[in-house]
Order: sequence, then C-alpha cells, then structure tokens
Amino acid sequence: MLQYAIDKNRSEPVYLQICQHIRADIELGNLPPGTKLPSKRTLSADLGVSVITAETAYSQLIAEGYLYSSPKRGYFVSDTLPSGTAAVPQRTALPEEEPIRTDTVFPFSIWARLMREEMAYHQSRLLTRPPAEGVPALREAIAGHLKGMRDMTVDPEQIIIGAGTESLCMLLRMLLPEHSVIALEEPGHRSIANVYAYLGMQCIPVPMAGDGLDMEQLRCSHAEIAHITPSHHFPTGQVTSVEKRYALLSWAAQGHYLIEDDYDSEFRLSGSPVPSLYSVDVTGRVIYMNTFSNSLTPTIRIAYMILPPPLLERFRTQMHGISCAVSTFEQFTLARFIQDGYFEKHIRKVRKLCLEGRSALQMRIQKEPLFAGAELSGTEIGTFCVAAFPTSLPDDVLAAKVQAAGVRAAMLRDFYHEPPSGDLHRLLLYYVV
Amino acid sequence: MLQYAIDKNRSEPVYLQICQHIRADIELGNLPPGTKLPSKRTLSADLGVSVITAETAYSQLIAEGYLYSSPKRGYFVSDTLPSGTAAVPQRTALPEEEPIRTDTVFPFSIWARLMREEMAYHQSRLLTRPPAEGVPALREAIAGHLKGMRDMTVDPEQIIIGAGTESLCMLLRMLLPEHSVIALEEPGHRSIANVYAYLGMQCIPVPMAGDGLDMEQLRCSHAEIAHITPSHHFPTGQVTSVEKRYALLSWAAQGHYLIEDDYDSEFRLSGSPVPSLYSVDVTGRVIYMNTFSNSLTPTIRIAYMILPPPLLERFRTQMHGISCAVSTFEQFTLARFIQDGYFEKHIRKVRKLCLEGRSALQMRIQKEPLFAGAELSGTEIGTFCVAAFPTSLPDDVLAAKVQAAGVRAAMLRDFYHEPPSGDLHRLLLYYVV
Repeated sequence: MLQYAIDKNRSEPVYLQICQHIRADIELGNLPPGTKLPSKRTLSADLGVSVITAETAYSQLIAEGYLYSSPKRGYFVSDTLPSGTAAVPQRTALPEEEPIRTDTVFPFSIWARLMREEMAYHQSRLLTRPPAEGVPALREAIAGHLKGMRDMTVDPEQIIIGAGTESLCMLLRMLLPEHSVIALEEPGHRSIANVYAYLGMQCIPVPMAGDGLDMEQLRCSHAEIAHITPSHHFPTGQVTSVEKRYALLSWAAQGHYLIEDDYDSEFRLSGSPVPSLYSVDVTGRVIYMNTFSNSLTPTIRIAYMILPPPLLERFRTQMHGISCAVSTFEQFTLARFIQDGYFEKHIRKVRKLCLEGRSALQMRIQKEPLFAGAELSGTEIGTFCVAAFPTSLPDDVLAAKVQAAGVRAAMLRDFYHEPPSGDLHRLLLYYVV
Repeated sequence: MLQYAIDKNRSEPVYLQICQHIRADIELGNLPPGTKLPSKRTLSADLGVSVITAETAYSQLIAEGYLYSSPKRGYFVSDTLPSGTAAVPQRTALPEEEPIRTDTVFPFSIWARLMREEMAYHQSRLLTRPPAEGVPALREAIAGHLKGMRDMTVDPEQIIIGAGTESLCMLLRMLLPEHSVIALEEPGHRSIANVYAYLGMQCIPVPMAGDGLDMEQLRCSHAEIAHITPSHHFPTGQVTSVEKRYALLSWAAQGHYLIEDDYDSEFRLSGSPVPSLYSVDVTGRVIYMNTFSNSLTPTIRIAYMILPPPLLERFRTQMHGISCAVSTFEQFTLARFIQDGYFEKHIRKVRKLCLEGRSALQMRIQKEPLFAGAELSGTEIGTFCVAAFPTSLPDDVLAAKVQAAGVRAAMLRDFYHEPPSGDLHRLLLYYVV
C-alpha cells in the first residue's frame, strides 16, 4: 500500500503530487524495477483521490517512462528508467518487446455472443432485405454513438451504411455530377484517391499547409468537392486549426461539398476535443464519413456517412433498388454492440492501448539508438503518429529496421500523389501492431 | 411397400415406368390423398433401382402434381390431382397454402456453428487484412464448387470476391476503359443498369430476341462490353440457345467483353445442363459472375467474378491497395460451408423447394380462378418463372392479387429501360417466398 501525503490545497495538481511521490520512490529504490503497483482503483481508495486522478498520474508516469502497463495485469515499474538512476533490468518482458496486437483486443466473446443471439432469435430480420441505406437499428445506434462521443445531433435517416470508406466513395461518386473535380489532400489516402480516379473523377492533389489544406491552392483548383481529414490528417497526423476549419466551411458555403473523413477521431489521446465540421456547418455542404475499421477491425467492412438533405434526396431516388453492401448479420450484431455499451468500452480500451503505445514509443526514443532523436508529431489523436528521424538511412531501410524492431510502420512518402524527390526520413508509426 | 414390376430392358426409362405405376395407383384410389410414400431410399431398395432413379420418378410426379413433398417428412399423395379423378381433399395442409419461406431454409444452425468455430479457433486470420481479391480459402472453395456443380476449371487466383453483384460491377467499371459502351439486356436487371449508368458508362439497351440477345442490334450498338444472363435470362427466364451462345462468343472474340451473369444457374429443375460461356470461351473475353444471393440469402452480401488474364493483371496493379468489401468473418465461414459440403446440400434442398413451388404453381393454375389459364415460361432453371395471364387486369392490380394470394411476384414491365406502353399481363413468380 502506497501511503503518500496529498495536499489538495496546494496549487500543484493532485496527480502531479502523486507522480512526484512515486517517481521519488522509484529513484530511491523503494519501488524496484518490475514491482507491481496498486490498481488505479486501489490507489484512488488508498489516497482518497478520484480514480481519474489516479489514472492520470499513472498515464503521466507511463509517458515519462517510469511505469509501464500490461493488459489485464496492471502497472509495473519499468526496468530501464528515464533518469538512469535505477538498476539494469533482469526482466525480459518490456512493453516494446511485447507489441500490442489488435487481435488480443477485438472483443471476440462478446461479438460471438451477440451474433449467436441474432441467429437464434431474429432469423427473420436477418433474411429481410434492408433499405439501401442500411439496417435502421444500426443507423439509430450510430446516431446515439455520435451524440455521446462527438456531441453530434444526427437524424438516423441521414446515415448511410457502406462496406468501408472506399465503398462509400463509390456510392458518393454515383450521387455527384459526372466529371466532378475533387480536391484530395497531398499527401493523403492513396486507395481513396484511386477509387475516385478509376471512377472517372478528376482528382486534384492539394498540398497541406501548416494547419490544414492550403486554401489558396484549393480555391485555384476549381474543385467542387474536397475529401479531407480535419480531425487527424492522414497521414501526417496534423489537426486542422480552428481558423482553417472556418475557411473550409466558408469555401463549402460557396456551393462546394466537403467530405469530412473522421476516420480515427474516437481516439483522442490528449488535448480537448475539436467539434466535427459537420456539427458546425449550417449550410448542408458537409458529408460526414466514419468507419469501424480503426475502432473495431478493418476486416469487418463497415463504415457510414451522413448525407446532407439534397444528396439524401438524390440517394433515395437513385439508389432505392441497390442493395446495401453490408451483411445484415453484421449490421444487427454491430447495432447491438453499440447499443449495449460494448463499443464505448472497446473504444476506451483501444484508446488506453494507444496511450501506452505512445508512451512506449517515447521510451524507445530515449533509449534505443534506432529511435534516438526521433521527433513525434500528430500524437494528440488517433492510432498512429508521424516520426521524423535524424538519420541518413533511406526511407525503406529505415522502415524495415523499425518494423523489425516490432513497430508497425509505413513510409510517409508512400502517401503522396507525386512523392517528393529524396528521402523524407519520416515514418508513420502505429501504436498497436 | 410398393411392389411394381420394372423392366430394365424396355425402351422406356425406368423412372417413367415407376411414374406410370404410382400414377395408376393414385388414380385407382389404391394410394388415397395424403398417403405417405416410401422414402426414395426405401423405394430404391424395394424396386431394385438406384436412389437417383427413385428420386427422379418422385420429382416427375411432383412436377405433374400427383405428389408433394414436405421437408423432413417425406413424399405424400396430393389432395387435388391433376386429372381430377381422385376425391376432393379433407386435409388442410396444401403446399400452396403454406408458402415456402426462405427463412425456414437458411441453414442457421450450421452457419452459426461454423462462425462460432472461426471466432474461437481462428481469431488471428479473421483480423488479418486479406488481399483485394478476397480470402484465398474462399476462392479455393468456390473453384472446387464450380468444378463440381458447373464442370468449370478455374484457377482460384482468378476469382475476385465482392459484396454482391453490384459491387463487382463497380470494380469492373474501375478496370474497364472510361466511357466504355456497355450493352444491357432489355428487359434486364435495373439496379445493375443503374450502377453502370451512374458510374458514367454509356448503357445501350439491346432487346431480347426469341433465343437470347438480338445479335444484329448488339453489333449495331457499338458496345464494347455486354452484361448478359445466358443461363436464365433475368427477368424473362429465357435460356440462351446454343447457336446464340456461339454467336455471342464470336462477337466477344472481336475484341469485346462478355459479362456472363450466372446468378441462379445452380437451380436447374429440368432438362440437361448447359455449359457456361466461360467454360467454352478460348479467347479470354468472358468475365464470369455469380452470387450467393439466390443460393444462400441476399442479405449476406457475397458474390464473385472470374477475371480473364488481362483484366486480372489490371486488377492486381490497380486494386492492390483497395480492401475487399466482404467481412473476413463471413468469407471464412462461407469457405468452410462450401468445403464441408453444406453448400451442395443446401442447394439440393432449395432446388427441391423450387420444384415443389413449381408444382404448386401448376396446380394453382388448374384450380384457382386467379391463376386460370396462366402460361408459365422459363421454368427449366432458377428460382422464378414468368407467367403470362389471360386477363384484362392492369399489371399492378394483377401483381397485388397474386401477392395477396401468397405468391411472391414482380411485374415484368418494371425491368424495362423503356417500359412498353400498355400492360404486359406478365409477372415473375418466385417459387419460394
């Protein structure tokens, strides 16, 4: 039991006081490497602080490298300490040697139970052809989720279910005028760009400025539509600034459409949440898109979009004979998964893993030559960040070494329509393998 | 026990001899309405004939209206006989008063078990992103199925999995040159036509001649591609003649592509099987498509196509970054379902229901005023046929009455790009509700 004196009247926040105590105990050797710390609930009870405060303290110490956490086991004192004052480790299981794997995270037993119940008790609805928009129960569950998670007020009728973001782009292509000109972020999501291009849209790559899409170039592009990732730019991780958001909405209000691809906004790791463009838009020019690929698994293909009224009208007229591309079996299972609160729990779990993965990366930067001096950006939100390496290694060699060291990595240069000449020495690093 | 003298040396096939005996016994009152007949195995043993012969005889008698079969219960003498010689029924459970429902047919318990086993024992592969073409195990299972069912030799590498036929059409649109001109059957599948049209292809409706697509009009259309349903034309039920098949292949050999949509070919009900165009083509100009919508359920969205080598090459180059639109959970479950023999059993079961549904329709034509004088066509294959009604009722009123009488129906006129003026008095009637 940790017995620390906490003074709630001090100007220093309580969680920082706890950090100081634990840090000191570790550095003094009172808590040797490998020691298991009390759970955050126990710590909260022992010290008379809230569980959130206990958790914040532990998160901070993880970020600093003093602690690490192991799923379902708890919090432990690190073997190698950032200050270098503690002993060299004997233990073998460092977090970075145990990459966090999504397949240990997917809620198989819950998913299997919900699916089994659907098949046992709701056979008739599983075999009934849903509307082209998707199963109403799922659209309602998503509307509820968006209210709770993103503070977005959405009519379930406006939600369209698709078999992944690329499928939704195909549907959108069918709703938008032929030969529409679409602006795409440069760098950006290549497979989405390919879908638009192969379906005959004229794609204009627009570079990212420091705080979002380069508005000057967007205006000159004559694009009628822009597909953007303002919450967490893919792949640089940049968050679009508030000024830029309003500039984008102002551009959209001139008769253009913004496709707001909010693909991993559930995983805010630090900072305060930024509202979606959709929720700020009053002109009906924003198409909101999100996917369960990052929040659940990319191998169950479910994504959705919210259509503004004129496009919704067109969808209903044109698409009513077309089948929703997602199996009803999985639509109903996901609806239950969301409605029964499992999705929120799952997001919290993955978010925690991302936080741990981020801390682990920060630790590696401090102690491993391969990562030494790497600068992370785009770490506020999402399941990956971008690392700039002070190295002369070619990007592909660097990526291979990082992968070999157990970190899932991708080369930033691979996401350009026209890759810059020379190496970027920048990789996307994913927190979870 | 039925004791009939069967003469295997007579020119008349054995199954027809059995039919004559049973027919006579029914008409003479020796087998009164409602009598349960021996199972086909028992009959086979009793008469010293093969089980297939016994089954063929029963199928023939079902088709003629003398017998009906009830799932898991066996074969019974019909209450109302085609010749009208037998007594009026007292029994209540006529096949036509119990519409055959697909939700009583879907193999929920097997599907649920296979899915559960996948989730219990193969978690890692369920979470692994498959190639854009789809899960290899499923593509191998489909190749095996095509060999057994359609005598087609297909390299699994050429098979592409998609979330339904419409999704496959979207993929094809991305592989074919922009502004391709595509010939579509008139009448034909509206939602497929809409997908092509909304994706910017120039669609030319080509009318059906008596034995398949009107070749003269196809040649004049300047189409580069034709999407056709030669095994069982949707919606007229017509089977394309052998001459017309070679004419189509000859047209394709001139540098065009044929999309052979084989959507319900599993359900051959009478006559001998006609090989697919794909299996006869030697020039690599046929794209074969099929779907599990008819054979399993349209609400699990899985279909596939077989690409000829040049298109396959293009698919691999262009699409490798794009995600296969079908959930791995369902791809692996379906692979097991096929490999373990359940799919074949299921097809046999549905085929039998179609035969029963067809007989029931034939019976209704003989005794119900609404159906009186209706002429059925397209009854050789598939899950529906077309009925021409000698009526002056408008098509929509007729369809509503038929639906109200418990037969799933659609108006033929709804499948025209340019519907003919006036009523057609023709409906698609589905054997299973």
